[in-house]
Amino acid sequence: MIIVMKREATEAQIEAVVRKIREFGLDANVSKGTERTVIGAIGDERKLDPEQFDILAGVDQSLHIVKPYKIVAREWHPQDTVVDIRGVPLGGPQIQVIAGPCSVETDEQMARAAQAVVDAGCRLMRGGAFKPRTSPYTFQGKGVEGLAMFRQAADRHNLPIVTELMDVRTLETFLEYDVDVIQIGTRSMQNFDLLKEVGRISKPVILKRGMSATISEWLMAAEYIAAGGNHNIIFCERGIRTFETYYRNVLDVTAVPVLKRETHLPVIIDPSHAGGKAWMVPALARAAIAAGADGLLVEMHPSPCEAWCDADQALSPAELNTLMGELRGIAPVLGRSI
Amino acid sequence: MIIVMKREATEAQIEAVVRKIREFGLDANVSKGTERTVIGAIGDERKLDPEQFDILAGVDQSLHIVKPYKIVAREWHPQDTVVDIRGVPLGGPQIQVIAGPCSVETDEQMARAAQAVVDAGCRLMRGGAFKPRTSPYTFQGKGVEGLAMFRQAADRHNLPIVTELMDVRTLETFLEYDVDVIQIGTRSMQNFDLLKEVGRISKPVILKRGMSATISEWLMAAEYIAAGGNHNIIFCERGIRTFETYYRNVLDVTAVPVLKRETHLPVIIDPSHAGGKAWMVPALARAAIAAGADGLLVEMHPSPCEAWCDADQALSPAELNTLMGELRGIAPVLGRSI
Amino acid sequence: MIIVMKREATEAQIEAVVRKIREFGLDANVSKGTERTVIGAIGDERKLDPEQFDILAGVDQSLHIVKPYKIVAREWHPQDTVVDIRGVPLGGPQIQVIAGPCSVETDEQMARAAQAVVDAGCRLMRGGAFKPRTSPYTFQGKGVEGLAMFRQAADRHNLPIVTELMDVRTLETFLEYDVDVIQIGTRSMQNFDLLKEVGRISKPVILKRGMSATISEWLMAAEYIAAGGNHNIIFCERGIRTFETYYRNVLDVTAVPVLKRETHLPVIIDPSHAGGKAWMVPALARAAIAAGADGLLVEMHPSPCEAWCDADQALSPAELNTLMGELRGIAPVLGRSI
Amino acid sequence: MIIVMKREATEAQIEAVVRKIREFGLDANVSKGTERTVIGAIGDERKLDPEQFDILAGVDQSLHIVKPYKIVAREWHPQDTVVDIRGVPLGGPQIQVIAGPCSVETDEQMARAAQAVVDAGCRLMRGGAFKPRTSPYTFQGKGVEGLAMFRQAADRHNLPIVTELMDVRTLETFLEYDVDVIQIGTRSMQNFDLLKEVGRISKPVILKRGMSATISEWLMAAEYIAAGGNHNIIFCERGIRTFETYYRNVLDVTAVPVLKRETHLPVIIDPSHAGGKAWMVPALARAAIAAGADGLLVEMHPSPCEAWCDADQALSPAELNTLMGELRGIAPVLGRSI
Repeated sequence: MIIVMKREATEAQIEAVVRKIREFGLDANVSKGTERTVIGAIGDERKLDPEQFDILAGVDQSLHIVKPYKIVAREWHPQDTVVDIRGVPLGGPQIQVIAGPCSVETDEQMARAAQAVVDAGCRLMRGGAFKPRTSPYTFQGKGVEGLAMFRQAADRHNLPIVTELMDVRTLETFLEYDVDVIQIGTRSMQNFDLLKEVGRISKPVILKRGMSATISEWLMAAEYIAAGGNHNIIFCERGIRTFETYYRNVLDVTAVPVLKRETHLPVIIDPSHAGGKAWMVPALARAAIAAGADGLLVEMHPSPCEAWCDADQALSPAELNTLMGELRGIAPVLGRSI
Repeated sequence: MIIVMKREATEAQIEAVVRKIREFGLDANVSKGTERTVIGAIGDERKLDPEQFDILAGVDQSLHIVKPYKIVAREWHPQDTVVDIRGVPLGGPQIQVIAGPCSVETDEQMARAAQAVVDAGCRLMRGGAFKPRTSPYTFQGKGVEGLAMFRQAADRHNLPIVTELMDVRTLETFLEYDVDVIQIGTRSMQNFDLLKEVGRISKPVILKRGMSATISEWLMAAEYIAAGGNHNIIFCERGIRTFETYYRNVLDVTAVPVLKRETHLPVIIDPSHAGGKAWMVPALARAAIAAGADGLLVEMHPSPCEAWCDADQALSPAELNTLMGELRGIAPVLGRSI
Repeated sequence: MIIVMKREATEAQIEAVVRKIREFGLDANVSKGTERTVIGAIGDERKLDPEQFDILAGVDQSLHIVKPYKIVAREWHPQDTVVDIRGVPLGGPQIQVIAGPCSVETDEQMARAAQAVVDAGCRLMRGGAFKPRTSPYTFQGKGVEGLAMFRQAADRHNLPIVTELMDVRTLETFLEYDVDVIQIGTRSMQNFDLLKEVGRISKPVILKRGMSATISEWLMAAEYIAAGGNHNIIFCERGIRTFETYYRNVLDVTAVPVLKRETHLPVIIDPSHAGGKAWMVPALARAAIAAGADGLLVEMHPSPCEAWCDADQALSPAELNTLMGELRGIAPVLGRSI
Repeated sequence: MIIVMKREATEAQIEAVVRKIREFGLDANVSKGTERTVIGAIGDERKLDPEQFDILAGVDQSLHIVKPYKIVAREWHPQDTVVDIRGVPLGGPQIQVIAGPCSVETDEQMARAAQAVVDAGCRLMRGGAFKPRTSPYTFQGKGVEGLAMFRQAADRHNLPIVTELMDVRTLETFLEYDVDVIQIGTRSMQNFDLLKEVGRISKPVILKRGMSATISEWLMAAEYIAAGGNHNIIFCERGIRTFETYYRNVLDVTAVPVLKRETHLPVIIDPSHAGGKAWMVPALARAAIAAGADGLLVEMHPSPCEAWCDADQALSPAELNTLMGELRGIAPVLGRSI
């Protein structure tokens, strides 16, 4: 950590900072500049908190120079991690498109959806049984009944399933239904108790970015899961909140190369929630893959007009097919297949 | 709801929209303008979802014209609600300042803090036993042991206590220790399962604004609690996330008059988390009360330099005293006491 | 325009609104719903301003339903506009990459830059002679001398040149040096006097998005230019301001499909200013083209390490070459060439 | 400046950084930590640009530790600056409320407005002759004719006038009409040529914050004016752009204590443009004064319902009177008068 002193800081104030650094078992390097003195803390600075120094007299500001995350950092694990999802590799040369409806509705809808997923050449299926809804008065998901329908429809095609976990108390049920990938939604990215729970199991976890989470907070949320022992983490960018009102969120495509540099874990994109309209999805999906994403999480409904939620953001089976064709054209440019 | 058709919409497309409105049991009013046709849905439009219409051919956009929240809306409950906290009224003419440390540390710290709260003339005490921390490697709160310390220190002065609930599984413990006000933190504002649980009890709830939640989403989160039967809800603005990097968050003081117009429930401000530095707190606290807030949630530590977390944002007992004096000068301008 | 009345609005208040609509020469359609009355203004609503109605007693809110822009809108001009830049078409099937240094420095630097532009297969060159700099104490550009150097270096290869105009008083000089494309920078997007001036000439204009401009404000800024008679407008997305601090701006790739839907004019992307680091540029550039952009504005410097400004965001000639190769792989997927 | 090296940086890379620092005439302090090496540049670091170091091999990041602004910084000028506006002091113990209509409309309107300004006890008047409007099709201000009307109406009461300058070419006219305070609007905060021009004269300048400008960029914009010789600068916060859609902007009240700490220049607030609705103005105005602002810029129209622009955000004369009464109650709490 670096502590920058105020221009008028006294010798005694400088010494007090040095003393505090040593109390934590670190060493101090004092560098006197023309205008200011800068003090460097030498040793494992993860033990120090800037706020403990900012409050001392004569201190202008203090900054960490080492990243606060470690297990998820590429710095400590240079090679890419490939997450194995019941035989389907995510994070390697093969791009994975996870498709399926926003919410599980009926057996028939799930059967048709699963068929469409397979027909489009996708290897993983998504679907929501427990739904986080802004209003208490709207459809909240089919719950456990939905999990059962989903499992059955996917099993017919041997598709691993991805679904969202909102409540720690439901984890047991997820394990019973052998959910293959547990999705942590944008509103739960900093539900630290939930993160700790999925850190204790070994199932792959898709960690969606909080709608206004910084890259650093997102990496720290993943570190919570990793610190518990579960390293099968997949980052999923789904659009961030900005001042723009034309679309629901702004897909932060820059997060792809940045995460690829900061972490060894796979990165996927959810183009459906980003834009919020089906007609924006193909452009965003192509952009994501071209930027280097390892995969996509896409909403597809066998009959979008009849969907019980987010009707206007689901692709039809035919649109998914066309999109997969386009992605097959882009993948080789990045040395990948799909 | 209003459905605006595209300029080139056909008669058949207009009729399809009308038909869909009627399917939901509402009536339709078709108004043909010079450039566009606009269709109004007449009846209880809370049954309709814009996305169900946006997807229809020929539709440009559809908008709700009725607010999606009801129990918390002033429209349906014009007079102010005063929440009773073990005899302390919040939301009436008396302004309430809830003070105390960021986190419960030791018995002695809590004893000194409680004394300082009382000395400053405050009637409610805050303190964190379970702490949401960005990093898994930092102090996570004293937990249940902290609750016990807090309860004991506050009881000596008969102070009702306010503390944060993060995990549904801890609610039972909160009730055992008879926590007087349950705080839902910024990261949990849309933890819908948690909202439903506190909606089932009758304890007052402080609902902090999500760090990038709109006023509308915040009101909907309160509606989740209210829909369960618990109407003892207090809104707490604590700063929103923006592009500015000089301070941690931007205190959204405009939220005060706006919430006062939209809801009958009390509104308080947390000036400590907003700015993130103790030296900003008095200015923000005065601004909040001048804008019409019903109270404050302020961090105060008996020895800020030794605080285990957020050291640089806690007021000292002396600073809290000075602030209370200033607020006593401002309150009468708004016809209030403190 | 639609005017939504408050629940408790009286008959007299409704009539006052209707009267005001008629004063402007429009007709009114009154629709009484279960909870509220909605009034539609029928006729050319561009004459009406919501704020003129919001202030009337009993009005809850009023909204435009017709877009406020017209010349630039695809609604009124369905086919794509191709801007001709001295024989180079922008907006058609051929993708154009405009490359060159952040700022004009020396004759030699410009000669080497121009050669690199041509070698990479680009047909247009960029370079800054007048530089908007955050600090008054940093290099402000070579000014007129820079324009001369740029013109000379580009002429040797018959490259049309693109450079930024900051001050209305410099326009004359730009015309003297026959600048081929005038760039309006992000800080000038709402410099309405400047927009009016470039609206009076016929030179193509690249209109960069303001760093926190909405799509609607951006289209209105273009409408300012178009209203003056100049329809040779090219939109350039260059990243927007958000809460994220890891990168300078967030490239808003969603703006590409959205602008393509809203306007007939070409849309390009500046991946260099978006991310602010050279290593992010290839990923963002590929994403832009995959999303459907008509071209790019890329910083390239013959020796990035020696650049006088934005050193860390310029590609080297070799990196530009590699990028062009990748883009040639992506273009055909969208039915385009490069 | 501090340059943080990457964990794997070599000795040669460290030496290259040291060499580059010395090339600029500064000295280097190398501090080797457990995980990283940190290099401090000793001397006048305003000569260095982080981007010149970020590009070097082995560098992780480089940061300025000295503020880039100087003339406007309180660090170099500890006592408050009081700007003298034709005898009216702004920045001292007396709070100044600048009131008047959004735009100059007619002689009669201005006469009534001036009377209301004086009646409310205000000492300065505002009014717009040249208006920045989002749409080219709406009223653009009365221009020079408006300036003349404004001057005449204000002179009758010996009120100094405040009006916005948008175009460098109009400055001459402003001086002819002897405009007392030149306002630089939010869209012009980084119109550097305009800043340079008002820096050459001695008239007081109100510098509004750009709608998404950071505190640091705002201070740098003021430094542009100050560097030209004009130190009569008044900062005006007018709301920033965020994700919230209920109100036009979010008044950033935290900017008040922060600017008071960073600069010696006066700080005022525009509560009218911040919220965008007249009913929000009193709460925001009180908050601003309670937070320590030196004054306000408030829209007041003799007949708000008939205003030609921003009708719904102007106070009536009676509302201004009431507000002034409230502010007179708050000012003494801060040891000020009004």
